Amino acid sequence: MVAPYRKQNVTPRSDENIRESVEQLLGKMTLAEKIGQMSQCADSEFAFGGEIEADPTELLVREGRVGSILGAFNSRRTFDLQKLAVEQSRLRIPLMFNADVIHGYQTIFPIPLAWACSWDLEEIKRACMIAAKEATASGITYNHAPMVDISRDARWGRVMEGAGEDPYLGALIARAQVEGFQGDTLFSEETLIACLKHFIGYGASEAGRDYNTVDMSEWTLRNVYLPPFKAGLEAGSASVMNAFNFYNGIPVAGNKFILHDLLREELGFDGMLISDYGAVDEIYIHGAARDRKDAARQSLEATMDIEMVTQLYENYLPQLIEEGKVQEAQIDAAVRRILIYKYKIGIMDDPFRYIRPEKEEEYHFHADHLQASRELARKSIVLLKNENQTLPLQTEAVIAGTQKIAVIGPFADSKDMLGTWQFSRYKEETVTLLEGLTAKGIAEDQLLYAEGSGVNDPIEGGIEQAVRAAEAADIVLLALGEHSEMSGEAASRMDISIPAVQQQLAEAVIAVGKPVVLVLTNGRPLVLDWYEQNVDAIVETWFLGSQAGHAIADVLTGDYNPTGKLTMSFPKHLGQSPIYYNRFNTGRPLTAENQDEKYISKYLDGPNDPLYPFGYGLSYTEFSYSDLQLDRQQMKSGEQITVTVTVTNTGSMAGEEIAQLYIQDLYGTTVRPVKELKGYRKVQLAPQQSIQIEFVITEQDLEYCNARLEWTAEEGEFKVYVGTHSGNTLEQTFELLK
Amino acid sequence: MVAPYRKQNVTPRSDENIRESVEQLLGKMTLAEKIGQMSQCADSEFAFGGEIEADPTELLVREGRVGSILGAFNSRRTFDLQKLAVEQSRLRIPLMFNADVIHGYQTIFPIPLAWACSWDLEEIKRACMIAAKEATASGITYNHAPMVDISRDARWGRVMEGAGEDPYLGALIARAQVEGFQGDTLFSEETLIACLKHFIGYGASEAGRDYNTVDMSEWTLRNVYLPPFKAGLEAGSASVMNAFNFYNGIPVAGNKFILHDLLREELGFDGMLISDYGAVDEIYIHGAARDRKDAARQSLEATMDIEMVTQLYENYLPQLIEEGKVQEAQIDAAVRRILIYKYKIGIMDDPFRYIRPEKEEEYHFHADHLQASRELARKSIVLLKNENQTLPLQTEAVIAGTQKIAVIGPFADSKDMLGTWQFSRYKEETVTLLEGLTAKGIAEDQLLYAEGSGVNDPIEGGIEQAVRAAEAADIVLLALGEHSEMSGEAASRMDISIPAVQQQLAEAVIAVGKPVVLVLTNGRPLVLDWYEQNVDAIVETWFLGSQAGHAIADVLTGDYNPTGKLTMSFPKHLGQSPIYYNRFNTGRPLTAENQDEKYISKYLDGPNDPLYPFGYGLSYTEFSYSDLQLDRQQMKSGEQITVTVTVTNTGSMAGEEIAQLYIQDLYGTTVRPVKELKGYRKVQLAPQQSIQIEFVITEQDLEYCNARLEWTAEEGEFKVYVGTHSGNTLEQTFELLK
Repeated sequence: MVAPYRKQNVTPRSDENIRESVEQLLGKMTLAEKIGQMSQCADSEFAFGGEIEADPTELLVREGRVGSILGAFNSRRTFDLQKLAVEQSRLRIPLMFNADVIHGYQTIFPIPLAWACSWDLEEIKRACMIAAKEATASGITYNHAPMVDISRDARWGRVMEGAGEDPYLGALIARAQVEGFQGDTLFSEETLIACLKHFIGYGASEAGRDYNTVDMSEWTLRNVYLPPFKAGLEAGSASVMNAFNFYNGIPVAGNKFILHDLLREELGFDGMLISDYGAVDEIYIHGAARDRKDAARQSLEATMDIEMVTQLYENYLPQLIEEGKVQEAQIDAAVRRILIYKYKIGIMDDPFRYIRPEKEEEYHFHADHLQASRELARKSIVLLKNENQTLPLQTEAVIAGTQKIAVIGPFADSKDMLGTWQFSRYKEETVTLLEGLTAKGIAEDQLLYAEGSGVNDPIEGGIEQAVRAAEAADIVLLALGEHSEMSGEAASRMDISIPAVQQQLAEAVIAVGKPVVLVLTNGRPLVLDWYEQNVDAIVETWFLGSQAGHAIADVLTGDYNPTGKLTMSFPKHLGQSPIYYNRFNTGRPLTAENQDEKYISKYLDGPNDPLYPFGYGLSYTEFSYSDLQLDRQQMKSGEQITVTVTVTNTGSMAGEEIAQLYIQDLYGTTVRPVKELKGYRKVQLAPQQSIQIEFVITEQDLEYCNARLEWTAEEGEFKVYVGTHSGNTLEQTFELLK
Repeated sequence: MVAPYRKQNVTPRSDENIRESVEQLLGKMTLAEKIGQMSQCADSEFAFGGEIEADPTELLVREGRVGSILGAFNSRRTFDLQKLAVEQSRLRIPLMFNADVIHGYQTIFPIPLAWACSWDLEEIKRACMIAAKEATASGITYNHAPMVDISRDARWGRVMEGAGEDPYLGALIARAQVEGFQGDTLFSEETLIACLKHFIGYGASEAGRDYNTVDMSEWTLRNVYLPPFKAGLEAGSASVMNAFNFYNGIPVAGNKFILHDLLREELGFDGMLISDYGAVDEIYIHGAARDRKDAARQSLEATMDIEMVTQLYENYLPQLIEEGKVQEAQIDAAVRRILIYKYKIGIMDDPFRYIRPEKEEEYHFHADHLQASRELARKSIVLLKNENQTLPLQTEAVIAGTQKIAVIGPFADSKDMLGTWQFSRYKEETVTLLEGLTAKGIAEDQLLYAEGSGVNDPIEGGIEQAVRAAEAADIVLLALGEHSEMSGEAASRMDISIPAVQQQLAEAVIAVGKPVVLVLTNGRPLVLDWYEQNVDAIVETWFLGSQAGHAIADVLTGDYNPTGKLTMSFPKHLGQSPIYYNRFNTGRPLTAENQDEKYISKYLDGPNDPLYPFGYGLSYTEFSYSDLQLDRQQMKSGEQITVTVTVTNTGSMAGEEIAQLYIQDLYGTTVRPVKELKGYRKVQLAPQQSIQIEFVITEQDLEYCNARLEWTAEEGEFKVYVGTHSGNTLEQTFELLK
């Protein structure tokens, strides 16, 4: 259907040519048409959750009242709408098609919190490239990803969508994702416009409740929440989306300080600024605008270019101009930013270039993509506990028929392994844990399957059946967790335990007395203290995507020796929330020596430390660290320090380790975190092999936002920590002289 | 012993005379002596928790190295030290004696969180007057109270020490306390210097852990945390103490913006600024100073006058002056502020005036004071649940011998009813619950007592004994809670439930099937959801002080119909923390209508609302509200609105109600709370009596700190709510025109 409409030999335009073309086009546009480009509707064919009332998409497109469409998910639909735009709207300006392609389009990759645990920037970038390749084939041009919010409270459902609690790793992963989505050039038919979201602070939602109050100092905003955005902007992200929260009492969608002063002026962002779903309207609902007209005014003043799904710009901007409350020049500036990208991605010259049904056929759920998904999935798995070498499974014995495995729990044979924020048509082809094990050549009668319970509801007779399976087996895989809608947007939990009905199942199965491996499917850090005390091994598999079962089986059988490291702390108790490793010392720090003193920053009824800290993750082998050395103890501006350390595989299996380097700035013009990740190396080691690895510390690594809100490194003493996780390191010291 | 040293006919000096005398004295002082006045030691006779190393108090006094002493708790000791100061130190400057007189000195009153629930400013003021009267008799001149920190997270142990979560009520209570402690004149021998603490933000300790990180916007600091301090300063508080936390990364003890710019310059505070215990040193421990010398410099720059217990001023200020890093004029300014108060309170002319052993004898634990304590204690009790009129007890039937009461639990006959932050010598005279009941004329054999369990540990056979008592009784009083060291400073809990061992006791006792009244002793809001569902009545008694048992018995028997209203929300689930009624609307508010929608600010697994909201508290009778009227719907600057409402006692018992008025500013230049307390009235009503009550709303009531950080009322629409608690109100609207 599309072929006759495609143009041949379209080449990218120069920036100058684009600028001129935009000005010409702008000169022809009515005010309504300009506002149309600034308006995005949700495709009326797509059922959204909200209560957005709008005319049918077709009408809006024909009348030039929208410039982009959210959620037209296949080439048939994008084709029909684009055809309407270029044939029936007055100026024939092509549409951009927007979607949330968060962790894959048809081939689903691990959720972002999971893939972050791979610490593998190339693999994450590849996942984003593949997602872009699949999505663009359907005509999608503009991605509402990556989400780069730092998050420190596991109650918040959207932790699944980000890289975790660390600004440094978050920045690296933000960059990798932008590079993956946008590729070398946005002109390519196989790259997507990336959109950094949510600018800024959304991850700090109070009490972990989604959309709730956020309050922080500018100092914290800059030190903690800003770095991933900075990195994504440096990588060239063409778009940024506002956060739903307010900052200093003003909703970000209308917050001129955040969007204009900080993002545009200071950070130099000149791409498209898009509102989150309904966020312009929500300025009014927040109570920070007298009426919707004023909400529209605030958003425009804040340089918001595109209003998602609501029609405040359409309804009120003309009147606001008439009243002199905003200037048409502000609208022109926004439209200019939008049209520039329509030229840059080539649709002004070749409106149907992305829409390639033949490529949908070829790319979607392609075997290579599935392989990439599986590779990233197994790198995303984190081994949390493995007592007495319970894992890997004795697969050969099982295959030989001398051992049986009970596979128990609501996630034992579940296809709910994709996680939320995906819209794949291939959900039914998701590989379950049981299928993954079977694919390893394990005969079905060696696998004693029992669902045991639902995720939140009991199954009649389920526990009895599970107990019988456990009794008949040599080892139990207990597959528990959260279903995919228990994390993600609008999916906050006040209690981040494994649901009670599954705990009952676990208690019954554990009581049988067989070795128990807890295999977790979930979208956030959970409180696992009871399990840590009561099972033999714990494997955190998150939501791993289309190939989940294969990836888990790779790890359980030892075909892949796990390497993943947590990027968010797992609290020991709910009451520790929020919790994160890069905390401050306080004036009365708890130490190994003063545990029994009273006037110390601690709880009466439990430790300050999480159950599993940032950077934590086991392997089937063991690594030891020794001989941490710095090539100098003093560093002047412009110099750098080379850090070396020896890592040894002290176990009997080959394995890969993510060695982590942290620094601590012992004093500053403000307080400084007790540890901050500043580098890591992945090393592959044969049994008993030692290797010396090297890190370089530059002055840039020592920078932070200081008491004068300047981003700078301050002279003084620093500690360097290197080790297997944030809580287990060697240390050295040096001094920065300035 | 003291009499010969007392001067007769000493009269207060004029301000001018004081200024001149201070300058003369200052002219005679060496630098060391000046720094001495700025140094406070903890009396070495008193065992403090910290690890402060210092020379013996006597030596420091003789050498003029301290100007005030913390924790000299009786007239013998204050006399000895004062004698040393005025006879053996070179300049013979008398000492001030400091102490934490938080809720009574020898006669203990309810903990401040409890007395706040009385909403009775006169009674609270009276409690503070009595505390001052008792403390000054021992020679104490300077009180480290009131603590006026707003607190919203019940995990934090120090919630017991403040007035709760509301800035408006917090401000009123701050004022009442300052007025109570300081009386009409500081020259009086029976008034104490008040000290507002902790300036500022301490209540926001992250994750409810004491001394932990605090981070907030200046907008929040001004709207939420500042009002009680403003009120206390307006009431003339002579002193302010810093908070342990940092603000914008800089520990408050050295934070020039907070202490100098905000407190001194903007709020005009010219009294004594004192560091909290060790807080000057903790600037260094926080990591915000390169060394202790720089910590001393920062504190002095921030205009900290008195360093509590550490010796950084003594050790480093001379050197800092020599190096030109601070000026002696800064030290002079601090010493001036201190000496002014030494003149004002009269000790420069009559150093022994406060030290009155004969008054200690007379005042301490005086019957009138005990009576006042009992009166405030019963007003502090909050009736949380009373199904089927389980309460009041059928006391006559019990006295007549036809009913028996089981009194079960670790607090059934406990003297641990004083709460923390008290140092009374009369602890053993604390009236227990059992004693309170007996004092009502109930024969001991009608009261079946069983301890049942300890607070945190089981008692062998305790549950069985408790069950037998319950079986033999007609009704059960189940006295559970926290011991006094489970709240207060350095007493944060990650789990704010009633300890598990007591829950087991409760389960066993409830299973007996008798009506159960839960009588709570505790220092913070607890998670009571299970109890709400499983007992018949719940009486929150906090820590009520010396007369606790009498006050509780007054309420249980109906001799006093409870009137208390909560000033801190009780969460339904730990995972809701922090929680407070004066929250913001968010952009996606949860309403009665949208509970089942997805994209709403809520949790998947429980409500947003607390179990018991701010302002909540039942009576043995019931009150209804009707006919809420405003005398005008529009209000111009300078005008006021009169609000009337009819309150009716619809029950069959006389009772007192605290009728509450809230406003909501529907929109502002920033978001505005969904409700804010702006007034309340206590009304006493006979059964079936109706009364019309009146509130006046002025423009001042509508002020807040807006987007430009100006304290102002903004034009627009407001709602007025009047009712029995923050969650149950009538409403009207009006508009402010400016």
